[in-house]
Amino acid sequence: LEKAGTRDLSFLGHPRYRKYLISTRAAAVILKPENRNDCPAIALVVENPTLAYAQAAALLHPVAHVSAGIHSSAFVHPSSQIAESAQIGPHCVIEAGVGIGEQVSVGPGCVIGKGASLGDGCRLVANVTVCADVKIGQRALIHPGAVLGSDGFGLANDRGRWVKVPQLGGLRIGDDVEVGANTTIDRGSLDDTIIEDGVKLDNLIQIAHNVTIGAHTAIAACVGIAGSARIGRRCSLGGASVVLGHLEVADDVHITAMTLVTKSILQAGMYSSGVPAQPNALWNNNVARLRQLDEMADRLKVLEKNIGERNGDRKP
Amino acid sequence: LEKAGTRDLSFLGHPRYRKYLISTRAAAVILKPENRNDCPAIALVVENPTLAYAQAAALLHPVAHVSAGIHSSAFVHPSSQIAESAQIGPHCVIEAGVGIGEQVSVGPGCVIGKGASLGDGCRLVANVTVCADVKIGQRALIHPGAVLGSDGFGLANDRGRWVKVPQLGGLRIGDDVEVGANTTIDRGSLDDTIIEDGVKLDNLIQIAHNVTIGAHTAIAACVGIAGSARIGRRCSLGGASVVLGHLEVADDVHITAMTLVTKSILQAGMYSSGVPAQPNALWNNNVARLRQLDEMADRLKVLEKNIGERNGDRKP
Amino acid sequence: LEKAGTRDLSFLGHPRYRKYLISTRAAAVILKPENRNDCPAIALVVENPTLAYAQAAALLHPVAHVSAGIHSSAFVHPSSQIAESAQIGPHCVIEAGVGIGEQVSVGPGCVIGKGASLGDGCRLVANVTVCADVKIGQRALIHPGAVLGSDGFGLANDRGRWVKVPQLGGLRIGDDVEVGANTTIDRGSLDDTIIEDGVKLDNLIQIAHNVTIGAHTAIAACVGIAGSARIGRRCSLGGASVVLGHLEVADDVHITAMTLVTKSILQAGMYSSGVPAQPNALWNNNVARLRQLDEMADRLKVLEKNIGERNGDRKP
Repeated sequence: LEKAGTRDLSFLGHPRYRKYLISTRAAAVILKPENRNDCPAIALVVENPTLAYAQAAALLHPVAHVSAGIHSSAFVHPSSQIAESAQIGPHCVIEAGVGIGEQVSVGPGCVIGKGASLGDGCRLVANVTVCADVKIGQRALIHPGAVLGSDGFGLANDRGRWVKVPQLGGLRIGDDVEVGANTTIDRGSLDDTIIEDGVKLDNLIQIAHNVTIGAHTAIAACVGIAGSARIGRRCSLGGASVVLGHLEVADDVHITAMTLVTKSILQAGMYSSGVPAQPNALWNNNVARLRQLDEMADRLKVLEKNIGERNGDRKP
Repeated sequence: LEKAGTRDLSFLGHPRYRKYLISTRAAAVILKPENRNDCPAIALVVENPTLAYAQAAALLHPVAHVSAGIHSSAFVHPSSQIAESAQIGPHCVIEAGVGIGEQVSVGPGCVIGKGASLGDGCRLVANVTVCADVKIGQRALIHPGAVLGSDGFGLANDRGRWVKVPQLGGLRIGDDVEVGANTTIDRGSLDDTIIEDGVKLDNLIQIAHNVTIGAHTAIAACVGIAGSARIGRRCSLGGASVVLGHLEVADDVHITAMTLVTKSILQAGMYSSGVPAQPNALWNNNVARLRQLDEMADRLKVLEKNIGERNGDRKP
Repeated sequence: LEKAGTRDLSFLGHPRYRKYLISTRAAAVILKPENRNDCPAIALVVENPTLAYAQAAALLHPVAHVSAGIHSSAFVHPSSQIAESAQIGPHCVIEAGVGIGEQVSVGPGCVIGKGASLGDGCRLVANVTVCADVKIGQRALIHPGAVLGSDGFGLANDRGRWVKVPQLGGLRIGDDVEVGANTTIDRGSLDDTIIEDGVKLDNLIQIAHNVTIGAHTAIAACVGIAGSARIGRRCSLGGASVVLGHLEVADDVHITAMTLVTKSILQAGMYSSGVPAQPNALWNNNVARLRQLDEMADRLKVLEKNIGERNGDRKP
C-alpha cells in the first residue's frame, strides 16, 4: 500500500497497514468491507483480502512453465522412471529405482536417493537432497538445501559409548506440502515419519524421526520437533518453538514463538512460554529473583501463616 | 597466547586470556597499553588489539588468489555475463541472464538462479544457492549451504487449507556482507528483503521475507527474524534470539542470547530475556512457581492489604 | 510393538510402550527381565534392550556395500590420494591434495576442499561440504547438507564497521563421529576446533570456532555452541539449548532442552532453564509478573520486616 504505484494492485491484509490506505496510489486495493470507505482507489471488497490477493497474484504471476527434459549434465540411473513431462536440471543425480511424476521440476544440483518417488507437479527448487525411499505426494514445493529422509538421531548407550540404532523406517509426505530452505526431516527408525497433506514448513526446521505432522498444520522457522511427537491437524507453531519427544499435540493447537512444549497438549487452544525482552538491567534483576522464586514462595507462605495466626480464624 | 610458539604473533583481545600473557612464548604480542608491562615478548601496543590482529593476519595470510576461468564441468547459460577475471568452479550452475563481476569466485557446486547478479569481488565458498533475481553487492563472502532469496513463508487460509501467497519481491544485499553456513534469507513477498552494507550474519540464521537489516549490524548463529521486521544499524543480536514479525528495532540496539523480542524497541540499549541455567532440581522448583506467579502476586497484594489495615493509615 | 507383524522382531526400550507389549503380534521381542512375563512372543531378555536392538538391526540390515570407484561425472584433482576401495559419487568435487581412506563413501554432490582428509570407512551421504584442511578420523557418518570447517564468526570493530578476523585454524574430528543434516561446524580462528571420538551431533546444530566437544558427548538438534566453549566428555545437550562463548562444561553434564548456559558448569549433573508451555492466557499473566519480579521481591521483604517488627524479636 505504502509503495504501490499507479498501475499496481495492492491489498490490506493486516490492520497494521490501514494507515497507508488513505494515501495509497495503488490502482486497486483488495480489502474488507469495513475499510471500503477509506479507499481512494478501486476497492475490491472481499472477506479474506490476503487469500484474494494470493489468488490474484498467482493468476498474474504464474509459476514458470516446466520445460520437459533431462539436462545433459544430470546423472540419471537407467532404472529410474522419469515422466516425459518432467524437467531434470543441470548436475542433478537421480539414483536407481526413482520414480518421478508428470510436470515435476527437479532444479539444479538436487540429489534423489534410490527408490524415492516424487508425485505429479512436485517442484524441487535447487540443491535439495531426497534420501533413499522417501515418498513425496503431488505438488510438493521444496526449497533449496532442504534434506528429506536423513537418518534419525537414534542411539543406544553401551557403557559410555554410543551405538547407532539403524534408521530403517521411511518418510512419507502427502500432497500440497511446502518445505522451507535448509529444513531437515528425518526418516523413521522403524515406522515412518509422516507429513500429512497441506502441511507448510518454513526454513531451518528440524522434524525428528517418527514424528507425525497432521494435515494443514503450519510451522514457522527454527522450530524443532523431537522424535515420535505427534502434532495434530490445523495447528500452528510459532518460530523457534520446541516440542519434546513422544508427546501428543491435539488438533487446532496454536503455539506462540519460542515456546517449549514438555507435556502433551490434549485440548485445542493457544499455548505459550516465550519470555518477552526487557531492558537488560531490569531483566537481570528479575531473572535473578526467578532463580530464587521457590524460596520466595516459601517466604510468602510463612507470612500468610503468621498473619493468619494473628487474625485468629480469619483467613488472610 | 597459551599455545603460541617462538615464531608466532599473538594478541590479547579479551581480559579472560590475560593470565596467559606472562608465560607466553610468542615472539610478539599485540596488546593494549595497560598490558604492556606484563608482556615478556615484543609488545605491539594498540588501542584495539583484535582489530590490529585482524589486519596483521589478513596481511600475513591473504585470501587465495582467484584463478580466472570457468571450469569445464560448470554449466553456464550463454545469456549470462561473466567477467573475464571471475572464477566459476566445478559443477556450478549459472542460469540465464546472470551477471557476475570482476574477481568473483563462485566455488564448487553453487547454483545462481536466473537474473541474479554478484558484484565485484564476491566469494561464494561452495554449495551456495542464490535464487532468481537476487542482487548482491561487492565483496560479499557467502559460506557453504547458504540459501539467498528463497520464497518467504506467505500463506493465506482458505477454510482450513493454506494457499500460497506468491513471493514476488526480491532480495538486495549491500556491499561487504558476510553470510554464514546454512543461513537462509528469504526474498520479499512484494517489496524486497534488504540486507544493508557491512552486515555480518553467522551460521544457521533465518531472515524472513521483507526484513530489513541495517548497515553494520552483526547477528550471531541460530537467530530468527520474522517477516517484515526492521532491524536498525550497528545492532548486535546474540545467538538463538528471535525478533517477531512487523517489529522495528532501533539503531544501536544490542540483544543478548536467546532473547525473544515481542514489541518494537525504539531506544538504543541492551535488551534481554534469556534465562540462565540452574541445577535441574532447583530449576524445577523455581519454574513450577513461575507458572503460579500471578497467583503469588495476588496473595502478596492481599497480605499487603491486611498488614496495611492493621497498621491503620500507615502504608506497609 | 504396536504395529509389528508376525515375522517382525521388536523391542521394548521405553516404559511408555509397555502397554503395547501384551497384545503385540511380533515374532520376538527384546526386553528387560522385568517385562519377560508379560511377553506373548519369544522374549529375548537383555539388560539394555535398545542396545541389543541396535546390534540386531545392524546385523539384519547391514549398511550398503561401498562400490569402489570414482564416478565419471566427479571432478577429482590429480594431486588427491583416493584409496582404491573408496567410492566417489556423481558430481562430487575433490580439490587438490585431499586424502581419502579405504572403504570411504563420498555420496553425490559432495565437495571436499583442498588438503582435507577422510579416514577409513567414512561415509558422506550427499551434498556435504568439507572445507579446506579439515581432518576427519575413521568411520565418520556425515549427513546431507552438513558443512564442516566453515569460517568462524570472528569480527573486530573499526569505528562502527566490522573487519573480518581471518580464520586460520582448522577443524579436527575424531573417530566414530556422526554429524546430522545441515549441521555446521566452524574451523578455529587460530587453534583448531576439535570434535573428539564418538561425538554424535543431530541436525541443524551450530558449533562455533575453537569449540572442543569431548568424547562420547551427544547433542540434540538446533543446539548452538558459541566460540571457544569447551564441552566435556559423555555430556548430553537437549534440543535448542545454547552454551555461550568461552565457557567450560565439565564431563558428564546433562543439559535439558532449551536451556541457556551462561556460566561455566564445573560439576557433573543435570542443568536446566527451559520454561514449559502453559495455556496462553495463564502464561501472559505469569510472564507479566515475571517482568515485575524484582519489585515483588522488594515488597515481600518490606512485609517480612513489618511483620517482624510487630512480632518483636521473633523472626517471621
